[in-house]
Amino acid sequence: MSIGSRHWAIGEGYIPASGNEQGDPRFESHETACLLNVNDVDAHVTIMLYFSDREPVGPYRVTVPARRTLHLRFNDLADPAPVPRETDYASVFCSDIAIVVQHTRLDSRQPALALLSTIAFAERSPG
Amino acid sequence: MSIGSRHWAIGEGYIPASGNEQGDPRFESHETACLLNVNDVDAHVTIMLYFSDREPVGPYRVTVPARRTLHLRFNDLADPAPVPRETDYASVFCSDIAIVVQHTRLDSRQPALALLSTIAFAERSPG
Amino acid sequence: MSIGSRHWAIGEGYIPASGNEQGDPRFESHETACLLNVNDVDAHVTIMLYFSDREPVGPYRVTVPARRTLHLRFNDLADPAPVPRETDYASVFCSDIAIVVQHTRLDSRQPALALLSTIAFAERSPG
Amino acid sequence: MSIGSRHWAIGEGYIPASGNEQGDPRFESHETACLLNVNDVDAHVTIMLYFSDREPVGPYRVTVPARRTLHLRFNDLADPAPVPRETDYASVFCSDIAIVVQHTRLDSRQPALALLSTIAFAERSPG
Repeated sequence: MSIGSRHWAIGEGYIPASGNEQGDPRFESHETACLLNVNDVDAHVTIMLYFSDREPVGPYRVTVPARRTLHLRFNDLADPAPVPRETDYASVFCSDIAIVVQHTRLDSRQPALALLSTIAFAERSPG
Repeated sequence: MSIGSRHWAIGEGYIPASGNEQGDPRFESHETACLLNVNDVDAHVTIMLYFSDREPVGPYRVTVPARRTLHLRFNDLADPAPVPRETDYASVFCSDIAIVVQHTRLDSRQPALALLSTIAFAERSPG
Repeated sequence: MSIGSRHWAIGEGYIPASGNEQGDPRFESHETACLLNVNDVDAHVTIMLYFSDREPVGPYRVTVPARRTLHLRFNDLADPAPVPRETDYASVFCSDIAIVVQHTRLDSRQPALALLSTIAFAERSPG
Repeated sequence: MSIGSRHWAIGEGYIPASGNEQGDPRFESHETACLLNVNDVDAHVTIMLYFSDREPVGPYRVTVPARRTLHLRFNDLADPAPVPRETDYASVFCSDIAIVVQHTRLDSRQPALALLSTIAFAERSPG
């Protein structure tokens, strides 16, 4: 069986500045969208980024292969434009098949890291 | 397409006292409601604050422009009254069109910051 | 209008041991259920606690007054029995009218506090 | 009454390396799925783990007894295979009766622990 929704939103978005990672990418401040595709076919996902003071940027395009998870760092998005640091944004994910999206941030600006996570908002109405 | 709901609630609310921010507003303890409006028209939002020991305060009024996100710090709300610090509250958001609301707190009272976040509760029933 | 659900569940429950609060109750490790009642009548709520190795305990009874929020510390529950510390539990909330429930923990066992929060699970099916 | 769903997903999964726990298992970095079964019969749950670069692993099988909660550490899963550390994964839970699933991580790699938690994604469509 499938699980999830085709349309997801994350209201919070903010990539903190560099911090205490000391060259270890595991501890670099980052924001991640964890995408899960339990289907037997690939999921083709488009991502739009929304800002407070400019037009949306996108679509970014990623593929989540069949039966795979993709932990996508917003830090790594590059095409059509990198995600500005220390800037408020939000994101919307649209997939051609049902997926699950979870949002996580690791903030390492101060001496001990901080974490947050939430399942994203799933649009459940038809469309 | 649109995404979200017109009615949202955040049960948790508490603005911590000042802490280790050392004059840097990024590290000031704060609570944020991240509002996302993907529609092509502005969203007009009213916010009511609920307390444990007094009548609700509001409405506060904010506009989320078309295709924009607004990361609203409760610390900054002023009209009709500022949000008291170190006081339990809760909040309800009503919009004239569908939006998404996510709740985040940064707590910097102790030597390293702490974070929490959750998608708010979306009322999905008609009304 | 009303907002919320009459039946809520929190799967995670664990009150950490005492920590770095140094006599300040704000920094005592605690778990909170933030209840919001936007209705114009009081909400009568019963809480059942579930454990891994014994029968459920309850009902605990609390009232959330009309147009009020109640940030209930599990630490403070006493009747019919206090909540054991450092013990896994879960909780179910049933109200006679719609409310919103959010779960938050502050953990101060180590030198800097940690936070988590999530909107609880709302049963949306009739019943 | 029952509460929950039969199908749940957690998009985020990552067991951090060992850290500052100093031999205390409470402070070992871990990921937990908190399962709650309020029914009067046992819940039989199968868990599938999804990865970014290999086929899914499972099913893992656990039983949540009637009227009990099970706080399952992914660290402890062993059959058919242990969960690799410092590796991205996601998980899907299918139960023969309705349960509630909440996801929590404690990360103790740095001098003060960090926490995250979210109610998992509940598939509410029939199936």
